[in-house]
Amino acid sequence: MHAPQSELPRLTADILERVRARRPRVHCITNAVAQAFTANMLLAAGAVPSMTIAPEEIAAFTASAGALLVNLGTFDAGRREASDTAIEVAREEGTPWVLDPVFIDRSPARAAYASSLADKKPAAIRLNGPEFAALANTEPAGEALTRYALDHLGVIALTGAIDMVTDGARLITVENGHPLMGRVTAMGCAGSALAAACLAVESDALNATAAALLWLGVAGEIAGAGARGPGSFATAIVDALYDLDRATLIERARIL
Amino acid sequence: MHAPQSELPRLTADILERVRARRPRVHCITNAVAQAFTANMLLAAGAVPSMTIAPEEIAAFTASAGALLVNLGTFDAGRREASDTAIEVAREEGTPWVLDPVFIDRSPARAAYASSLADKKPAAIRLNGPEFAALANTEPAGEALTRYALDHLGVIALTGAIDMVTDGARLITVENGHPLMGRVTAMGCAGSALAAACLAVESDALNATAAALLWLGVAGEIAGAGARGPGSFATAIVDALYDLDRATLIERARIL
Amino acid sequence: MHAPQSELPRLTADILERVRARRPRVHCITNAVAQAFTANMLLAAGAVPSMTIAPEEIAAFTASAGALLVNLGTFDAGRREASDTAIEVAREEGTPWVLDPVFIDRSPARAAYASSLADKKPAAIRLNGPEFAALANTEPAGEALTRYALDHLGVIALTGAIDMVTDGARLITVENGHPLMGRVTAMGCAGSALAAACLAVESDALNATAAALLWLGVAGEIAGAGARGPGSFATAIVDALYDLDRATLIERARIL
Repeated sequence: MHAPQSELPRLTADILERVRARRPRVHCITNAVAQAFTANMLLAAGAVPSMTIAPEEIAAFTASAGALLVNLGTFDAGRREASDTAIEVAREEGTPWVLDPVFIDRSPARAAYASSLADKKPAAIRLNGPEFAALANTEPAGEALTRYALDHLGVIALTGAIDMVTDGARLITVENGHPLMGRVTAMGCAGSALAAACLAVESDALNATAAALLWLGVAGEIAGAGARGPGSFATAIVDALYDLDRATLIERARIL
Repeated sequence: MHAPQSELPRLTADILERVRARRPRVHCITNAVAQAFTANMLLAAGAVPSMTIAPEEIAAFTASAGALLVNLGTFDAGRREASDTAIEVAREEGTPWVLDPVFIDRSPARAAYASSLADKKPAAIRLNGPEFAALANTEPAGEALTRYALDHLGVIALTGAIDMVTDGARLITVENGHPLMGRVTAMGCAGSALAAACLAVESDALNATAAALLWLGVAGEIAGAGARGPGSFATAIVDALYDLDRATLIERARIL
Repeated sequence: MHAPQSELPRLTADILERVRARRPRVHCITNAVAQAFTANMLLAAGAVPSMTIAPEEIAAFTASAGALLVNLGTFDAGRREASDTAIEVAREEGTPWVLDPVFIDRSPARAAYASSLADKKPAAIRLNGPEFAALANTEPAGEALTRYALDHLGVIALTGAIDMVTDGARLITVENGHPLMGRVTAMGCAGSALAAACLAVESDALNATAAALLWLGVAGEIAGAGARGPGSFATAIVDALYDLDRATLIERARIL
């Protein structure tokens, strides 16, 4: 079903070019800390962000979007209501959506809510190790990821020094990235938003999600090469995401 | 009544210098995505931003401000209430205010609200083509702009590759700018905030609004010359807005 | 009790190294304008930010944090409720907390609320001259600071061209800094957040608060040396905060 793994860099380059050509709109329900950086990363990638959570218009914005991102970074009642409506619309319309269960390891209330959303079949869930442990009640190792993906019929993307992406049938690892990515707020959120943008133009959810993380990881490496710290790094990764060309992406990809 | 158009660059330089000298406070009711960038652009211009929407204090903050910005980028109940109070106070005090009807082409509820605000005589409305079409129910062409401005006794500023600013009697076009301005979130919002800052120090609303767009457009060109992508561009336009001197502004102005 | 003042640069370097080694989490109840910059400054310093204000989880996030920041920059009902809960938890747990009474000179309602919080014994209050005048009903001079600190059994940090920090018994002045710090939104908020991070690793509240302002001031000077305006300055100060080493800090410190 899937292309052989050596095809992944080329597939990613194809997806990147499709995002730039089609400019999908990604509707983001995300926390205030992450909104501006997420919007700027989507714009740099070629996508179009929208971010309203007003009850009067969340359905209309979601129905006409190419993909939806639900990020739990701030967990207020307004965002939960907006999420419930938006996910319902996305499921009716067949719009792919991504769940980013930020910091659920810090808050049982948030973990319980994330678990209820995971049952609503997001195309992909992107999270880190402690967040996966809180969501799945198990260690974030390869087999647990595979089982969780199979049980939920979706893609799990566990990000860290090495990213692991699985749909239960196949596991892709992405080794690109840079340590300064952990020193900029909302970098993970931006990865989830980028996954949503890729899902808007690629129906294979595994390849779309892995493509987003590869794109981000290579951009991070390029940014890290010239950065003097997390401030200049945050600026440079936006530039690199925008500027990345096919040849550079394929040459630098460390994806298996 | 107005200065001949060849005077516009010099008039803009005068307004810019007045903003820097008087440091007007602009009270901004704006969306969370745009708040930090808007605040930083106002500070770079020499103005002072404030952004509270709390019902206990919105009236006091507006009454003592030099100008008011109402941006509809996120359309929650709290911001609508704050907007209604703030506009009432601004009208009582004779404080100029700017309407930025973000994304009203995406949401009928938001367009209806924007239309009701446009009837309350903002000094200026800044928007893009699709937003004007949603507001005025007509194509965003020169004649429709003129008629809308006459009907509402205010300035309409339609921004895009070429900006058009009219009060119904006269039409100013501003050709300065850079394509990367469309790749940074809240750039339009920043233009509206800058218009508010200029309106705080210049009673001719047409010249004040055109001056803001010229200032921003020239800063964008300077930023674009050295930028490697939208990340470094967003940083550089803040610098350029801060740094722009009279001679450079006048030399680079393409305003008619 | 305190180290002699010539020890302050070395003490600051020790505190800086402890923040980097222990990576304390600072829970921030702060305004939307300041959230992203505050988070990035904390991450650059080596600390970990969290920012939820949801009633279901504010207690859990505060109880497990190393320090708490309460910033009044946006003064909505949700943030006030969250603040009341968080401060109660912090007091029970003995967690140090910092009050930043932003813009209370503009709003009597906000000043009254700030005054009620000041009575709940924050480890430190950081503010500027007009904010101190609104809080203490007196001129922001040395003696009034000392008296206010004694009356409230906490540290008062008055920031400006020269920062003054006192616990009532001793007064420290920090002369490092750069004029562009006043042209970037949320720079004061970032200083308060940094004070919270230092309080998480240093029990002497006076030294912790002064250390934060010295760290920020020296980073500001380094950033200012290469900046072309407030945009590049805001990027560079994040880098400088991250990059600052012991020798440079001690060599550049102007603290008495």
